[in-house]
Amino acid sequence: MKALVLLSGGQDSATCLALAIAEFGAANVMTVSFDYGQRHRIELEKASLLAATAGVSYKEVPLPFIAGLSQNALTDNSMTIDAIGPESMPNTFVPGRNLFFLSVAAVIAKQHGIRILYTGVCQTDYSGYPDCRDTFVRSLNVTLNLAMEDHFEIRTPLMWMTKAETVQLMADMGRLEWYAHTYTCYEGVVPPCGVCPSCLLRARGFAEAGVLDPQFGF
Amino acid sequence: MKALVLLSGGQDSATCLALAIAEFGAANVMTVSFDYGQRHRIELEKASLLAATAGVSYKEVPLPFIAGLSQNALTDNSMTIDAIGPESMPNTFVPGRNLFFLSVAAVIAKQHGIRILYTGVCQTDYSGYPDCRDTFVRSLNVTLNLAMEDHFEIRTPLMWMTKAETVQLMADMGRLEWYAHTYTCYEGVVPPCGVCPSCLLRARGFAEAGVLDPQFGF
Repeated sequence: MKALVLLSGGQDSATCLALAIAEFGAANVMTVSFDYGQRHRIELEKASLLAATAGVSYKEVPLPFIAGLSQNALTDNSMTIDAIGPESMPNTFVPGRNLFFLSVAAVIAKQHGIRILYTGVCQTDYSGYPDCRDTFVRSLNVTLNLAMEDHFEIRTPLMWMTKAETVQLMADMGRLEWYAHTYTCYEGVVPPCGVCPSCLLRARGFAEAGVLDPQFGF
Repeated sequence: MKALVLLSGGQDSATCLALAIAEFGAANVMTVSFDYGQRHRIELEKASLLAATAGVSYKEVPLPFIAGLSQNALTDNSMTIDAIGPESMPNTFVPGRNLFFLSVAAVIAKQHGIRILYTGVCQTDYSGYPDCRDTFVRSLNVTLNLAMEDHFEIRTPLMWMTKAETVQLMADMGRLEWYAHTYTCYEGVVPPCGVCPSCLLRARGFAEAGVLDPQFGF
């Protein structure tokens, strides 16, 4: 049995990678990242570095068409990133992003005889992105199986966990140092800005878990 | 109300365009085509010409990543196109093709405030492509709505029609001449090869409808 892990360069997908390796072994785990013109492209360097550290194969797929499909703050540097709002969708929503990522991942998986896919999407820290919801992922799973006459199984082990629980899980697996090779900031700056919605979410998770964030060299 | 028609350059999507225009008017219909590295790229010229003839807006979206995801006879010129086989999937199957086309179309539609999508997929002349089946399209419709918190309605008016019935429908709408601006041959040659699975299917449809195919200048 083999598994494909969608790596975003962030802490959630790093945790998924650790889980997949724990179950299937590094030799049977493949990772994939997507370049969709995100302003925080540094996450791709992190993803590649993490894959090398974990000893798994890594594939980067360019999906330049995504940035051209809609206007959003993640692919348009001229826009200012809004704070997380519970009411409407934030301007960092890239329509169809997880739809495209998981669909492309499934096609790649099929070519490699892989039917298990890991994604770090999480509804608990739901930022108003409809394509992070459990119901979307389950519907897409059925759609992908019908599209390719296959039996994919999309695993979302972090779906209902808080960021603090995710950090704790990683600590329990003894892989906390892998978080040094992750990046979360929407702004794409080094060091991370510390004030964007994504930075704040990450900082709160580590604080609640009572763990120092290895991305700061601790 | 507006509608987006996925144009492939073939006769089925041309028929969908005629239906959409009949219901919504040309001013409210938008068309989109996809360049995915297909060997029969001439279909894109046909699609653009058809849109101009019909007086609707036209958008061509390059999706070069599709050709790189898998090996198949439609995007790999070194492969020979297999005949239609009822047993296994033909080697012209491009995994995820309709999944990507409809997903991209939905994102574009959303940007333009359009919720009705037309696609010419057809299960009657099912060539072993799982992503032409009605059950796939219905599942994807739900998935797209969940992915983008929207209310898309994917229309597949030709799903259960034979090619002959489609030709007859076009004749009834008085748009038969639009078929001059369509192209079907998998080989991408001019004039069409006449012997590939796609040419044979088209020829049989016109023969059964008792209509001459305008693509030959009739």
